Amino acid sequence: MRRRGNHIRQGKDKTVIGKKVAVVGATGAVGQEMLRCLEDRNFPVEQIKVFASSRSAGKTVRFKGREVEIEEARPSAFTDIDIALMAVEADQSKEFSPVLAKNGAVVIDNSSAYRMDPDCPLVVPEINPHAISRRPKGIIANPNCSTIIMNVPVWPLHMANPVKRIIVSTYQAASGAGKPAMDELAESARLWVEGRPIVPKALPYQLVMNLFSHNSPIGENGYNSEEMKMVNETRKIFNAPEMAISATCVRVPVMRAHCEAVWLEFAQPMSEARAVEILRQAPGVRILDDRKANRSPQPLDASGQGDILVGRIREDISLPGRGISMFVAGDQLLKGAALNAVQIAELL
Amino acid sequence: MRRRGNHIRQGKDKTVIGKKVAVVGATGAVGQEMLRCLEDRNFPVEQIKVFASSRSAGKTVRFKGREVEIEEARPSAFTDIDIALMAVEADQSKEFSPVLAKNGAVVIDNSSAYRMDPDCPLVVPEINPHAISRRPKGIIANPNCSTIIMNVPVWPLHMANPVKRIIVSTYQAASGAGKPAMDELAESARLWVEGRPIVPKALPYQLVMNLFSHNSPIGENGYNSEEMKMVNETRKIFNAPEMAISATCVRVPVMRAHCEAVWLEFAQPMSEARAVEILRQAPGVRILDDRKANRSPQPLDASGQGDILVGRIREDISLPGRGISMFVAGDQLLKGAALNAVQIAELL
Repeated sequence: MRRRGNHIRQGKDKTVIGKKVAVVGATGAVGQEMLRCLEDRNFPVEQIKVFASSRSAGKTVRFKGREVEIEEARPSAFTDIDIALMAVEADQSKEFSPVLAKNGAVVIDNSSAYRMDPDCPLVVPEINPHAISRRPKGIIANPNCSTIIMNVPVWPLHMANPVKRIIVSTYQAASGAGKPAMDELAESARLWVEGRPIVPKALPYQLVMNLFSHNSPIGENGYNSEEMKMVNETRKIFNAPEMAISATCVRVPVMRAHCEAVWLEFAQPMSEARAVEILRQAPGVRILDDRKANRSPQPLDASGQGDILVGRIREDISLPGRGISMFVAGDQLLKGAALNAVQIAELL
Repeated sequence: MRRRGNHIRQGKDKTVIGKKVAVVGATGAVGQEMLRCLEDRNFPVEQIKVFASSRSAGKTVRFKGREVEIEEARPSAFTDIDIALMAVEADQSKEFSPVLAKNGAVVIDNSSAYRMDPDCPLVVPEINPHAISRRPKGIIANPNCSTIIMNVPVWPLHMANPVKRIIVSTYQAASGAGKPAMDELAESARLWVEGRPIVPKALPYQLVMNLFSHNSPIGENGYNSEEMKMVNETRKIFNAPEMAISATCVRVPVMRAHCEAVWLEFAQPMSEARAVEILRQAPGVRILDDRKANRSPQPLDASGQGDILVGRIREDISLPGRGISMFVAGDQLLKGAALNAVQIAELL
């Protein structure tokens, strides 16, 4: 039974102490979903603080039926917080997160700032919840969205039969580039319909009726940083530093759910039937794979869903007996970002 | 020098005999591009006949500045034709192509009807032009669009260093499902912008702001028929029956150019520099790969282009020294269909 305004919540068989929670970057696409996840999942919030840029300060956001005033995100304001959910860019996180942690908050950071820091756990609750216990900096990193969406279904397969190599190509939604990119996609759809010129601003190129290689910097080895996040973060989350992974990341004209075509090479023989059996029992996974109806995960199916949808599960005919291919879809803003962060907070 | 209305064209150093050419399915997306390719490439047409369904009979299409009346496609009309370009569905091709061939035409068929027939060559002019010489049925098959677009850049690499395995995921445009699908994508964009419900008809699901696994039937092995075309047709065109190939084919909200993320495994060591050098000299290939500017092939670049664009060329870090990954884009209606068919006609 939940009583609003009281910081003690009665669970079925235990008393839950309410937390003082802050969402930093509360007006962005991920920040707004964080507030929604806290609310939808009945996270025990004793007090909520919401921070954004000075532009938004003084405006309000709605949380649990009431208006909460947005404060300007600046270090001096970060006091009396138990858990800080960070939905800001990496450079801002580097400025804010250590202050929050020093002031006693556990920081759950959605940016890339601390993901590869050996002193910050990188956590997907279905995979490595135990990792949160060692957090000398007080900061827990939330993985890259494409990484989480791939890892949730790959992990249980890897536990059953070690995955030696992953090949993945992504179909990433506009939401991964933030609210301005989502707005730009919607606006450019209107311009396209009206036959008017499209001038991209938030995105580097026209996205409507087009697609392009992910617009993160390309490194020495020819991979862009989004692709290397999928490689390095998966290795860290799985504690599999030798796992061979190659990714091609592509932005497609879709609003908020990422899809991925995944090929897995296993150390031991792996049948399609066994893969399906494992995935059917996997936490956070829902199979959508009707061959007769030709029905498999689509971005519209995954939008607004917490689970990762998996379909097109089949033996890889180019690697008989050792390979599985599948197609996955997940909401970039939910399991790819906000939901995973709130699930980490629940582990605390 | 070209003189209109005369069936003798003077080439630089030879006399070209004009041909009596028919386009069957002339009102469809591919048929229209076939007419345009014949015109743009100055194909020596002595006489053009255009056929479509009875619905379109009596209407006209424009060819070389004049209106040509559309005839109803029916076997009795298929006389006095040298070359027939078929842009119809497989079942119609099976009805029409043998009649045309019996009446003396060389048939170039864009459908899947004869592609795997051992008595019909399956031709990409940059790859196996010699194959056209043996055509006991008088029918030459034009490969699947995704297959052609992948094969043009893969072939020269395979010639330099045998490709053992191909992994490919596609980003396929609406045009692959025909003109009704292109119209539906445009119309659904308008409905989306207006916030009105989208009811797919030509396509199985909403495509705008969404994507879905290719809507061809899924077979016993879990692969859909589009994917198996890429596997089987590539093996036939390359004369490489043992080549390991796995494809995942996906329809994306793009009008007319397909993209593909491709991973190649080579028999011998292969460097990125060597792959780039080979692709730079490859016929029908244009490299678009600026890492600093993060510029690689997009559907809008490839639309209206005859070449296959290749970018993101890099060593596959999951297969050091033996793998190359790349991203390709090609116009589905041109090199993926009409242009390739007209190039085959030019070989005759």
